[in-house]
Parts: sequence; structure tokens; C-alpha cells
Amino acid sequence: MTAAVRTRGPVRVVGSGLLGASVGLGLRGRGVDVVLDDPSPTARALARDLGAGRLPVDDEPDPVLVVVAAPPDVTADVVATALRTWPDAVVTDVASVKGRPLASLAASGAPGLDRYVGGHPLAGRERSGAVAARGDLFVGRPWVLTPSEHARPEAVAVVRDLVVDLGAAPVVMPAADHDGAVARVSHVPQVAASLVAARLLDAEDAAVALAGQGLRDVTRVAASDPALWVQILGANAGPVAEVLRALRGDLDAVVAALEALSADAEAPGARADLARALDAGVRGQARIPGKHGAAPQRFAVVTVQVPDRPGELARMLAAMGEAGVNLEDLRLEHVPDRLVGLAEVSVVPTSRERLERVLRAGGWELAG
Amino acid sequence: MTAAVRTRGPVRVVGSGLLGASVGLGLRGRGVDVVLDDPSPTARALARDLGAGRLPVDDEPDPVLVVVAAPPDVTADVVATALRTWPDAVVTDVASVKGRPLASLAASGAPGLDRYVGGHPLAGRERSGAVAARGDLFVGRPWVLTPSEHARPEAVAVVRDLVVDLGAAPVVMPAADHDGAVARVSHVPQVAASLVAARLLDAEDAAVALAGQGLRDVTRVAASDPALWVQILGANAGPVAEVLRALRGDLDAVVAALEALSADAEAPGARADLARALDAGVRGQARIPGKHGAAPQRFAVVTVQVPDRPGELARMLAAMGEAGVNLEDLRLEHVPDRLVGLAEVSVVPTSRERLERVLRAGGWELAG
Repeated sequence: MTAAVRTRGPVRVVGSGLLGASVGLGLRGRGVDVVLDDPSPTARALARDLGAGRLPVDDEPDPVLVVVAAPPDVTADVVATALRTWPDAVVTDVASVKGRPLASLAASGAPGLDRYVGGHPLAGRERSGAVAARGDLFVGRPWVLTPSEHARPEAVAVVRDLVVDLGAAPVVMPAADHDGAVARVSHVPQVAASLVAARLLDAEDAAVALAGQGLRDVTRVAASDPALWVQILGANAGPVAEVLRALRGDLDAVVAALEALSADAEAPGARADLARALDAGVRGQARIPGKHGAAPQRFAVVTVQVPDRPGELARMLAAMGEAGVNLEDLRLEHVPDRLVGLAEVSVVPTSRERLERVLRAGGWELAG
Repeated sequence: MTAAVRTRGPVRVVGSGLLGASVGLGLRGRGVDVVLDDPSPTARALARDLGAGRLPVDDEPDPVLVVVAAPPDVTADVVATALRTWPDAVVTDVASVKGRPLASLAASGAPGLDRYVGGHPLAGRERSGAVAARGDLFVGRPWVLTPSEHARPEAVAVVRDLVVDLGAAPVVMPAADHDGAVARVSHVPQVAASLVAARLLDAEDAAVALAGQGLRDVTRVAASDPALWVQILGANAGPVAEVLRALRGDLDAVVAALEALSADAEAPGARADLARALDAGVRGQARIPGKHGAAPQRFAVVTVQVPDRPGELARMLAAMGEAGVNLEDLRLEHVPDRLVGLAEVSVVPTSRERLERVLRAGGWELAG
């Protein structure tokens, strides 16, 4: 899977957090010269010690490419400074919101807008900081590029090469489209998860104890860092508000239908309103891409009881592998008060019978 | 784990769908006499053929226990009929909403309210009907019992024995508490998932293609059957509307904050409003019980690249098992356009270093 490296150095990475240090590690691993820059001397030195690049020398040559990996709320300023400081360099950034930084850059009258190409790698992990960085953080992930109408094609090509060299899949779209897209697929789901989880705050312990996998799934991302999300939502406030207003319109219809049914179990039209909202959800969910970006596919799910001991799941999957059954997805569900887990094994529907036969033959108990 | 069976037959199971047939299979597997009853002769005969019980004989003795597993919207009527028909039998049901059926039962003046104990097994699967039934469907799941103040202790004991014999964990609470609890942990998350998924209906393909695991998690349950959910939400309309109104209050605050930030990036107080909503989500999410019903625990997550071939994941998990690393959770994430999956392996934090060492030693590539 190794292709020729097209990125030329020196590449200056401004900001030595998770994303900046991962860019540095990825490029260094492919032999590209990386210069580290960060307002904090400690952060800079740490990233160097981790192998993400070198510190600038006295007569440092100008960079060919500058990657701004600063916090979202200072990204536009740092990009403007980079464009001014290095008049021949291509400049990109990795902030998760693209429209507002571009607008403030254009409004600032900064020179070199033709050399700026915004970017957003859809990658991250549950830890932050340079210590969590990895050279393969971006492998196989989409990385959106949002060149403005001012951007020169050569500049777009340079940033595209960077993305490909880091193993990511470049996706080009206008900044406004990007911001609307992440509002729908990331920012609004985050808000919804937080709002649902917040309803558990004043619930009884006995109520929360009835939680199942559905609630765990809906609320998992609600555990994310509020400080980071305040920055992200603030930077994409307009698009997120727009999607949330549409969601609130649908919510109002659901609440009205439920109130009508609460007052009169025969309330005419109320069930149709509920059905419409639920059906829209079914059709929206069906649009989410499945494995390897392919069209969504329904898998057959077989649930198996797995003793909670090291190696038990491996033994089961080995039996599946020997039988040539390819696992499409696997989830573990834990059974309260018992030392057994339930493994939900997803396979293509045509493999279901074979899988069940293999498991029963191996002595595993299937569960509902 | 086999204990003495306490349920005495004949047990009459009214309704031969997924839940009714699973109750029959579970009891038959433990040697209890089960009589099947369903308005559809075909459904009844199918359940019998699957081993869920026998059909009634001419001089059928009265049942000791009647389990009503009818659709939610007819449950109250079927319970009332059972109480009238068999004046000595204990009667229970498995409907997912408890307050409204009890109220309409009490209002109907039906005799034998002291012999009725409502129940709700928190179990189900993605398929419905008797063919999907399993005797172990309820193993390890909570099964809520909602005896009214009229219920005799002996009747509660009979239903509790049924629950224990089927391998489930009985949880006793008032019907109103149950309905408020499932509104929060099940019905409102379902509505939220549907509303978020519906926002994808008018999105561009390129936008939906940016979907990640977060969106998949939040919207997974949106794929559920709308017809069933209209019944459930309709039956629990009051409690669900109440929780949704509170959620809408929080949503209004988030939208107002975003609109303020959209108009003025420095809008005073707006970021604090966002932070409050997100922080409430963090604290609510933290209340959801973790593995085996224990207190929630944060696991360390290590992401590994796994070639998309049968047996590869098994090989990795076998190496983990040999090294004594116990898997707490495992999720597969699929990489667009590449024949490699990313496995997110969760372990207790103290096992992270060992796990990473084992994986690197085995030649696996870790990913971000």
C-alpha cells in the first residue's frame, strides 16, 4: 500500500497537539522534513522528543507548506500570520469548522488567500495532546478540503498530496457545504446525545438500571469534553442552529401528538403524526453508509453467550474463521449480575445459518 | 446455575408472538406444562410446532397462571377476559407500558384485580414472531413487575417465580415509576434517534458520506419498526411527552445560545449556556450502568487495524487471551474504500500498556 511520497519539505506544523504531532509523525515516517512550531516551548520540545519533527534552526529556510493545527478559536489568526510570514508557502489548517475562519480571513484583508486551502481530517481519539499522537491517525479517514474560489489549483494539489501521503481520503467541497454536513452528521448528533443523557440526571437509580444497549448507543458521545464542544459548536453556530431548528419543528409535532394521545387515546391524526416522524427516521438512518463506505446493508445478527474470561471470544471467532464466516460487526453486551457477556455477531444474511450451525456445534449457547 | 423450578402448570400463554412463544419455550424447557392460546389458529399451531407448548384439550383444567403476550393495544382487554374466565388464576402480561393498561382495567370494574400483576421483560430482538422465539430470550435481562395496591402477595410471588424460572432478574416498582423510567431510558432516546436521523433525509450524499461512528451510534435505534413504536409511544404518551418537554426546554436554550453566537461571536453568556447543556449530558451519561450492572467505568480504548479476512480478528483476540488481557468491549469500525477494519478494543486502564505490547509484538498496526 506504500506509494511514492509527494509532499516536499520543509513542512512547518504550527501547533503541537494531537493533530499537529500526528501530522508530524506521519510525515517524518515517510522521510519528509518537519519543523515544529508552538507558542509553548514545552509542547514544542515534547513533540520533538516524540519524533514528530525538529525545531527551527537559525537560518531556517522558508517552508513549502504550513499546517496550522492550532485550537479552533485562534486558527484564522494563525493562518493569516503564516500567509504573511512566508509569502511563497501553501497554508492549510485542520480545524473542524471551515466557513467562519475563511470569512474572517477574507475580511482581515490578509494577503495570500490564493495560497490558503482549508482542511478537516475526520479523525480523532478519546485522548488529546501530543502524547496521544500517532503517525497513522489519519489512515483510511476522510479529510475534507475546502478551497475557496481564490485558491490556486497548485495550492490545492499540494494539500491534497499531504492528505494522500498521510493515508487519508481527500474529499473536496465548499466550506459552507462542509459546515452544513458536519452540523448534520456530527454536531447535531452530539447535542441530541447530550440532551437525552441530561434527562437521566434527575432519574431514580432504579430507572437508570433499566438502561439497555439502545440508551448506551444514543448517549455514548455525550461523554465528550464540553470545553472542546463549546468551541466547535460556537464556531459552527449558524449551521448547527439551522439544523436544530428543523429538528425542533419535528419534535414539536411529536410532543403535540403525544399530548393529544395523553388527553384522548383516540385522538384523530395523532398516531399518523408519530408514524411520520418515526418513518422519516427509518429513511434517514438507511442513508448512513455501511462497511467500507459501501451502500448500507442489513446484516443478520446472531447473539451468543460468551463466558467473561480471557480468550473465550477469541475461541468463538476462531471457530467462525475456520468455517469461513466473515464477521461484519461485533458488539458485546454485558449482562447485569452475571459473569457472562452477550456477543452480537453480525454477518451477511446468507451466512446466518452456517454461523448458527458452527456456534451450536462448538457448544456455544445462542441467546435472544 | 440451574435451580429448582417453582412455576406450576398449566401456564396459559395468550398470544404466540416473539415474547409469548419465548415464554412457552423457556417453561417447556424446564418441564412446565404450557397451553397455547391465540386468536389466530395458524399462529397457535406454529408456536406448538416450534415446541412452545400444547394446544388446549377438551376438558382443559383451569390454568394456575396466565401470561398475556398480546399486542400492547389489546393487552388490557385480554387481561380482563382472563381474570373473568379463570377465577383462581394469577394473570400477568408482558406489555412495555404499564400504567394505562392498569388504569383501564381498574376503570372497567373487572373482577380479580388482586390476582393481576403487570410485568415487562426488557428483552427483544431485531426479529419478531414465533419463529424468532428462544427459550433463553430473557436470560440475564431485567423483568419489571408492577403490582398495584390491590395485588395479593401470593400472586406477586407466582409471577416472580415465573421470571426467575425464565432466567430474568425481577425488579418491582409502581406502574407509574416504570412508565417514567422507560420514557427516559428507552422511549425518549428512540424519538431523539429518529429526529436526528430524519435530518439526513435532505442532506447531500457527500455530507452523509462524512458520517462516523458517533452518528451511527446515535441513530442506530432509528431503524426500528415505526408501527410497533407508534403503539408504544401512544400507550405511554403522557410520560414521554413530559420528558420530551423538558428536553425541548434544554434544546431551546442551546438554539438560543447558538443564534446569539451566530449573530455575534462574542455574545456574552452564550458559551456558558452551551457548556451547561453539554456538562449535564456528561453527568447524565455517567449514570448509565456499565458491565454486569456495575458502576460505570471508563475503559482504555486501543484501536488496531485488522485485515478484512475471516479469522484475523480471532487471531488477535487469541493473542490477547494468551496474554491474559480481558476484553471489556470491542467495536469494529469500517474504513471506507479499504479492505481493512479498525477494531476498537476496550480494556481496563491498567491493561492498556500490556495490550499495546502484545499487539505490537504480534505484528498488528495500531491506529488512531
